[in-house]
Amino acid sequence: MDRVRLFLSSLRADALLVSHLPNIQYLCGFSGSAGLLLVEPESSTLFTDGRYTAQAHEEVLHARVRITNRGLLRALAAVLLVRRRRRSVAYSPAHIAVAQKNALEAATGRRVRWIEDGNAVEKLRAVKDADELERMRAAAIIASDAFGRVVPSIKPGVTELTLAAEIEYQMRRSGAARASFETIVASGARSAWAHARPSSKRLRKSELVVLDHGAILRFYCSDITRTVFLGRAPKKVRRLYRAVLEAQAVAKRAIRPGVMARDVDRAARGVLKGYGLAKYFTHSTGHGLGLEVHEAPRIGRGEETVLERGMVLTVEPGVYLEGLGGIRIEDDVVVTANGFEDLTTAPRDFLEL
Amino acid sequence: MDRVRLFLSSLRADALLVSHLPNIQYLCGFSGSAGLLLVEPESSTLFTDGRYTAQAHEEVLHARVRITNRGLLRALAAVLLVRRRRRSVAYSPAHIAVAQKNALEAATGRRVRWIEDGNAVEKLRAVKDADELERMRAAAIIASDAFGRVVPSIKPGVTELTLAAEIEYQMRRSGAARASFETIVASGARSAWAHARPSSKRLRKSELVVLDHGAILRFYCSDITRTVFLGRAPKKVRRLYRAVLEAQAVAKRAIRPGVMARDVDRAARGVLKGYGLAKYFTHSTGHGLGLEVHEAPRIGRGEETVLERGMVLTVEPGVYLEGLGGIRIEDDVVVTANGFEDLTTAPRDFLEL
Repeated sequence: MDRVRLFLSSLRADALLVSHLPNIQYLCGFSGSAGLLLVEPESSTLFTDGRYTAQAHEEVLHARVRITNRGLLRALAAVLLVRRRRRSVAYSPAHIAVAQKNALEAATGRRVRWIEDGNAVEKLRAVKDADELERMRAAAIIASDAFGRVVPSIKPGVTELTLAAEIEYQMRRSGAARASFETIVASGARSAWAHARPSSKRLRKSELVVLDHGAILRFYCSDITRTVFLGRAPKKVRRLYRAVLEAQAVAKRAIRPGVMARDVDRAARGVLKGYGLAKYFTHSTGHGLGLEVHEAPRIGRGEETVLERGMVLTVEPGVYLEGLGGIRIEDDVVVTANGFEDLTTAPRDFLEL
Repeated sequence: MDRVRLFLSSLRADALLVSHLPNIQYLCGFSGSAGLLLVEPESSTLFTDGRYTAQAHEEVLHARVRITNRGLLRALAAVLLVRRRRRSVAYSPAHIAVAQKNALEAATGRRVRWIEDGNAVEKLRAVKDADELERMRAAAIIASDAFGRVVPSIKPGVTELTLAAEIEYQMRRSGAARASFETIVASGARSAWAHARPSSKRLRKSELVVLDHGAILRFYCSDITRTVFLGRAPKKVRRLYRAVLEAQAVAKRAIRPGVMARDVDRAARGVLKGYGLAKYFTHSTGHGLGLEVHEAPRIGRGEETVLERGMVLTVEPGVYLEGLGGIRIEDDVVVTANGFEDLTTAPRDFLEL
């Protein structure tokens, strides 16, 4: 929390209200699904409800625990009103609903001046320390190995749902707490849906299959994608794969401390443009990864975040052609002193199964 | 959408902005993870981004699809500004972040008057139609059967994580799209944590084990809990189980159209009070269930929602004694014309394994 307190003094705020659960977990360790954290210069307070009494006392470091079953906002407001003088409280407008903010304002009135926190906690979270990197490295290996283990099952006749279940089961068997998001298995024309949910559709010969999955290990996420072909791929498909793989390699080589996120995105987009495929690349090149499967920084057009050593990013260009299908290749990388290092260990060669 | 349009006219609003994803899916069918829906008297518009182009065109009924990669809020504001005159737009303050609302207000200025929607869509969703009930019945059977299938694996030496993985795998094998929430397997002292995540702890003889899990089938959730004992349970534990089971039965018998949610909660609480256990029941008696695993109505103290035929609820009293462990029994029920009907099919007898 010390870095947060430094930030508090730089902001001239008397306190920071943390309402986003991953931020709360990052700062005090609490992993429950209902909580608010108030960081003050001398002490901090975690508010949660009776379902989490034992868990909060076991998990929380650097903060007092306040259990209430009469609403977290009400308990928080009471603490904010304890002191007489008017106080400045920083908060994150992206992570509090209008209804909650209205309730807080009604309860605290002119006694609290609300200041935007400028995503202070997200910025801290973007740069990982050694312990976080160790967890993320292990989470990436679990996802990579699960891909390797299901390759023999990727064949005509099996349903997308069955494959997704097997990937998640393999990750669990390797120690993952759970999947970091709903595993995507999308085959044939459905692979052109960048975010398709697995369905009861059966895989068929001569189809592309996109597998996008990740594991959570000790709260930290991995997120990888591989695309395979069932049978011998036509030339056109091989060329698409080559283009995406090259876009990914070039984007990775653009990564190092000091460059902007948009430069990495532009690198990937430039390669696909050279192949005449830019318009089929319908999403950003990547995103930060950590306690959340999508967190700062975003690696997209116009993003001016400057990359720093210790940031963990996905690099995942893709092309999606309606009717034909989609190809995406996604790895997790950490920004190093001079460039990047792959956390994902699964091979990237085009598999024709 | 017709019921929503009726609501619009009753509210004297010109349009309804829907920002909560399950509400969007309920109204127009879109199941992607990024979207905004604007309902207007003559037509409706779904805004989403390029990742969901194909999916939106396949899924969306009763609305135009607008794809944008420059921000959904910006595209929405542009549509709101098309008409000259000042318009009233209903929105849900519980489901829009302060930052988003500020951006919308900045973009639309005095041209839009924002009105709170009074949770109109949540209220519609609380009452299920025949198609929804059919899905929920099947989802409850999948969760019930998965419990039956893992009973033989609940024995000393197995880890909580392994059991959780097996439950989810069984649900998947029976056709579930995925688990409706992170499966809880909590053994021994950890079972006193009402919301414990499964850990690498191994089950031991003479421990309580709480298993809380659910399936999503065609987008609808189930949510059931069973508690078993490893070995022969001491008298004290049997008495606790009997108390919770009786509390659940009495709460269910309080369910029928016209009663308030708080009356069902009070029924459960009254039984536990009779056993001197009221203070160990640290959460609400239940919650609505549907597209979300927690939705309206909440079955808790002071909740004045009047139950209606077709509402689906969980009934899940529990007691949690630090050190000793916890017991919770949870079923999904539908409110019928005269009472309730169980959707959960797993037996409720106390299993001593």
